[in-house]
Amino acid sequence: MTPHRALQYARGRRAKFVSELKEFLRFPSVSSQPKLAGDVANCAKWLARHLNGIGLDRVRVIPTPGNPIVYASWLHAPGRPTLIIYGHYDVLPGEPLREWHTPPFTPTLKNGNLHARGAADDKGQLFSHVKALESYLKTGRALPVNVKCIFEGEEEIGSPHLTSFIVRNKRALRADAAVISDTRMLAPDRPAISYAQRGGLRAELEVKGPPHELHSGSFGGAVHNPLQALCEMIARLHDSHGRVAIPDFYDDVRGWGEAERAFMERSGPADEQILRDAKLERGWGESGFSLYERTTIRPALTLNGMSGGHHGPGVKSIIPSRAIAKLSFRLVPDQDPQKVAQLFRDHIERITPPAVRSSVRTFSPIKPALVDRNHPVVRAAALAYKKGFGALPVFLRSGGSIPVVTTFQEVLGCPAVLMGFGLPDDHIHGPNEKFHLPNFYNAIATSIWYLALAAKLRRTERTHEQVSRQNS
Amino acid sequence: MTPHRALQYARGRRAKFVSELKEFLRFPSVSSQPKLAGDVANCAKWLARHLNGIGLDRVRVIPTPGNPIVYASWLHAPGRPTLIIYGHYDVLPGEPLREWHTPPFTPTLKNGNLHARGAADDKGQLFSHVKALESYLKTGRALPVNVKCIFEGEEEIGSPHLTSFIVRNKRALRADAAVISDTRMLAPDRPAISYAQRGGLRAELEVKGPPHELHSGSFGGAVHNPLQALCEMIARLHDSHGRVAIPDFYDDVRGWGEAERAFMERSGPADEQILRDAKLERGWGESGFSLYERTTIRPALTLNGMSGGHHGPGVKSIIPSRAIAKLSFRLVPDQDPQKVAQLFRDHIERITPPAVRSSVRTFSPIKPALVDRNHPVVRAAALAYKKGFGALPVFLRSGGSIPVVTTFQEVLGCPAVLMGFGLPDDHIHGPNEKFHLPNFYNAIATSIWYLALAAKLRRTERTHEQVSRQNS
Repeated sequence: MTPHRALQYARGRRAKFVSELKEFLRFPSVSSQPKLAGDVANCAKWLARHLNGIGLDRVRVIPTPGNPIVYASWLHAPGRPTLIIYGHYDVLPGEPLREWHTPPFTPTLKNGNLHARGAADDKGQLFSHVKALESYLKTGRALPVNVKCIFEGEEEIGSPHLTSFIVRNKRALRADAAVISDTRMLAPDRPAISYAQRGGLRAELEVKGPPHELHSGSFGGAVHNPLQALCEMIARLHDSHGRVAIPDFYDDVRGWGEAERAFMERSGPADEQILRDAKLERGWGESGFSLYERTTIRPALTLNGMSGGHHGPGVKSIIPSRAIAKLSFRLVPDQDPQKVAQLFRDHIERITPPAVRSSVRTFSPIKPALVDRNHPVVRAAALAYKKGFGALPVFLRSGGSIPVVTTFQEVLGCPAVLMGFGLPDDHIHGPNEKFHLPNFYNAIATSIWYLALAAKLRRTERTHEQVSRQNS
Repeated sequence: MTPHRALQYARGRRAKFVSELKEFLRFPSVSSQPKLAGDVANCAKWLARHLNGIGLDRVRVIPTPGNPIVYASWLHAPGRPTLIIYGHYDVLPGEPLREWHTPPFTPTLKNGNLHARGAADDKGQLFSHVKALESYLKTGRALPVNVKCIFEGEEEIGSPHLTSFIVRNKRALRADAAVISDTRMLAPDRPAISYAQRGGLRAELEVKGPPHELHSGSFGGAVHNPLQALCEMIARLHDSHGRVAIPDFYDDVRGWGEAERAFMERSGPADEQILRDAKLERGWGESGFSLYERTTIRPALTLNGMSGGHHGPGVKSIIPSRAIAKLSFRLVPDQDPQKVAQLFRDHIERITPPAVRSSVRTFSPIKPALVDRNHPVVRAAALAYKKGFGALPVFLRSGGSIPVVTTFQEVLGCPAVLMGFGLPDDHIHGPNEKFHLPNFYNAIATSIWYLALAAKLRRTERTHEQVSRQNS
């Protein structure tokens, strides 16, 4: 099965595909805000209807204790490899709304970009594969390989229910490889495959002082301020050189040899590029490492948000009664999230001033992940990029965390191919997120090519599908 | 004119007075929230109508560029002294609402206390004088002294328009003394007169990093975090001994001799009492000073509130683009708010890390104030307390700041008598603010007595009224 008719179909329907993506982006499917659970559910239903419409089988909206998983498959290529296509239809909140030039859930075309929350992370990337599948199914009524789509609605909150879903359905989900498109390229003409993901751990640190807010005139100077104490504790989480100051934090961090660091220097973004993407003039952090290394092979601890006392308009003369900070760790091989959680708790206990009380909550542990750059399914992806974007991809490490990568590797035993279609300036997780439309079109072509190239892997790869048949 | 008929009138109308105070408290006259300006104006109109109803003259709602001043007078006692009665009808916001047992603007009676925002600070205290005036005017159609009421609507935001009003009306506002009831007693049977107020200065400190929020996976470890930087800067505002760490900050702080400190130790609250009021087990702050001293003769810097990044429900993997902190200084003789503002700016400039930008806004400067404990108008107030509460008051320093005290002293040249009727556990500025009703009744009696006792001051005091007659 050659991909040419599918490619032609996709080229002729770009305007329609964009209009459908806009429909998809209109749902405020924010997984971190329970009040929007209804919108998340509606988005899942819309996606399921859409998958049904393009000709996939067994389309289901599978409930979880949280947001549903949208599942679909096409398994009519016996003897051919099976690919999992993973994506997430949930998004981050649109806040701070005032910083958006157009509303986050009113998708808007501007200068060849589609602006909306989730445009790049991850609805646009997910949808590229969906449109590739459609292009085959609407032209030849068949796919070159077997496909199992797993589109989850909780990636942005750490995929709390995905692992148990995969474990429960381990047999049904057997596959030769999982394709995940939730990473980025270096530039529109410089595609990239991510071969490493940082792990993660989230934490909330709360400090409590007086049971009620106190008047700062009556008590200021005589009682401790939990908000001030929290600031002072946070100031003790990093040293003056930008290193995390939690004792033993770096003990398990893997050192990389000259060869790998030289490869990273050749293939990865230069400091200047990273600063340009961040729109900053100077970097920060651990000395002895490039900015690319600091965001990939070195761990980080980020203060994501904090509040305490009166922070609305106007003034209020109070000593707050409590303050809270939200933090996230990014972890690297061979750090273990559970061990880091304990180190963090121990450190906080040590540095909590006696006049206040602190409590720590840690959650969403994610192990760091590595993929073999030379695996045949990864090499096929590289060729597909060459066809779709006109250039071979670079192999990059990613600073982010995609929980499912480890799950696919550990539970299903199949490699994850991280084919990114985003761009560094897509503002994912920030205001004015966008998806670059030429990337959308090339991503669809790349996916069409990948499905075709993956079909040839059967001769070299002994698939799990075959194993299951032999065993049953 | 003896106060007995007035006292009898007041005793007979307690239920009615409470019900009127509830009406007064129902207005959410929050001066720090511009969207509530209409409620502030309505509260002013209600108060003016009320003052008119009890028989005061020249009742006016005087517009300012901010909230109006409610003015009323009664000047039919020629040759007798003139008292200014000052209070404020504006209140702080009710937030955090979830911590109130009853809604802040639904006044609720419980265990002899009236719960509502503003119940003690300052509507209830202000209203005590209003009811005293009514008790004279409704029984004898006259007051023992001349009275000028100035009830402002911007005390909680630093009285930005009161000074210019007083300066503009300097001649019309001449008086022998100003009575201000916006402070507290030690206990229901232990009245107090405040003879010192700390000054103040407010500041907002903003730190900016990247122009947009950045993904903490992509950039965490390589760019500085303005929220983390703000925490680290705040950690450098105090040393590990609880002293403000701004260079030269203590240069102008007046040292007090053994006699004054011994007087303070005798008259002021013990550490245990202050901790009990704060519902805390241990204090904090500058060593070498009692908690009472730390909150009165020593300055303080309080972090009132702070926010940055994502602090709503759920998680968001971002590096914030900015963070802001709200702070307030409490200043003591002989610190100058303007000089402190400069010291603060200089310090912030020094400690801002190079990878972020900071900006400082200072406002609402208030000079510290002292009142002569032995002035006849103060001694008359002490006697009035003895009559109203059955005990002579202690003389206390107050940790708070009442901007108008300095204005009355400096512009009108008249001493301010700080007759407090609040209690330490009134939760002013916090959730569940209340006014103890026995204090309300005794405050009315005390005010009735004070008006009678002040009438006798004319023989010893050469009043401004007389000066004005001689000059005109």
